[in-house]
Amino acid sequence: MSVTVTDGRRARGAASRERILAQATDLASTAGLDGVTIGALAETTGHSKSGIATLFGSKESLQLATVDAAAEIFRREVVEPAREVPRGLERVVALLAGIMSYSRRRVFSGGCFFQACIADMDSKPGPVRDALRAHIAQWEGYLQAQVSAAIANGELQGDARTLAFTLLALYELSNARSVLTGSDEPYRVAAAGMTWMLRAAGAVGIPPALSAFE
Amino acid sequence: MSVTVTDGRRARGAASRERILAQATDLASTAGLDGVTIGALAETTGHSKSGIATLFGSKESLQLATVDAAAEIFRREVVEPAREVPRGLERVVALLAGIMSYSRRRVFSGGCFFQACIADMDSKPGPVRDALRAHIAQWEGYLQAQVSAAIANGELQGDARTLAFTLLALYELSNARSVLTGSDEPYRVAAAGMTWMLRAAGAVGIPPALSAFE
Repeated sequence: MSVTVTDGRRARGAASRERILAQATDLASTAGLDGVTIGALAETTGHSKSGIATLFGSKESLQLATVDAAAEIFRREVVEPAREVPRGLERVVALLAGIMSYSRRRVFSGGCFFQACIADMDSKPGPVRDALRAHIAQWEGYLQAQVSAAIANGELQGDARTLAFTLLALYELSNARSVLTGSDEPYRVAAAGMTWMLRAAGAVGIPPALSAFE
Repeated sequence: MSVTVTDGRRARGAASRERILAQATDLASTAGLDGVTIGALAETTGHSKSGIATLFGSKESLQLATVDAAAEIFRREVVEPAREVPRGLERVVALLAGIMSYSRRRVFSGGCFFQACIADMDSKPGPVRDALRAHIAQWEGYLQAQVSAAIANGELQGDARTLAFTLLALYELSNARSVLTGSDEPYRVAAAGMTWMLRAAGAVGIPPALSAFE
């Protein structure tokens, strides 16, 4: 009986934690990670400050849990769907279309979680910045590995680092300008730039996923 | 005599204003415009809060004066030097080399002032966001007009909006990643991407300014 009670409490704790983190990731995308405080979350979620403190501990632990939760959403929304198509050019295009869709659909209401948070944290050394950097390095490494696979396949020609950086740059600016202006036009321009670039790098028969933005 | 006293006071006021704004633009580049408060500037400049309030009025007026001061520095560092070379491809390259140099030299200690501030302000409607947007639109319009001139000269081929957006995107990501990692490598990659892109758009004899980053 006492086991059942404990399990019930644990399950409720996990559910509360998940709901609070959903609010925290969304809040961070507009107010930055500095805005993710126990007080601010108490206000938006209706939980007591002490309840949130019991679930997360310090502000830093809360921010780290927020970065982890956002990385999990990012994997689910952008990386996992692209893994269903073959490595190389097709997966590169799926990743680019996936990340622009994630931004355009405002999975987080302030646009890309990571872009919103690094502007805030880049000059603040510590474990939260390290966690953001690690996620960004992992994502960029994955995109570049797919560009390298496309080069190895003979689907693209050029330097993998330069091509991956340019494709990523187009996405990053589309998110930044769409959030700034409220317009979808930056996604159209970025998709046109990506298509232009991939052709200039020798791609033939570019998968149609990017045309959804034009 | 009283005229001389008044003139002396005015000159001292203008000099104080300029010194305070130099601190304010630098502070905004690391802490965002939200960090530019009368209290924070009193601390860094040694002026009294009431002295700063007398010179600038409200927090909003202070933030608007900070954006204007940053725009003036940007014009002096990036736009004016490029105006000395002919319109078209040469000026496009001068603008790109100029903005990467401005970022790499940390004219503002947090890197590009405008990139640092918009992440902060993009979800906060009001005159400060409008001023940032107006500056960004003016700069991007100017870069695009130079790309159009290069196309009209027959120096580049393609769509001016797409080309200008891609070049700008490469700069923006170089600044963001350099600030995040403390490395100069992003400028090398961005310059390589710009050179690759300009060649793919038909440029021959690209002016050497970008090779300073490689």
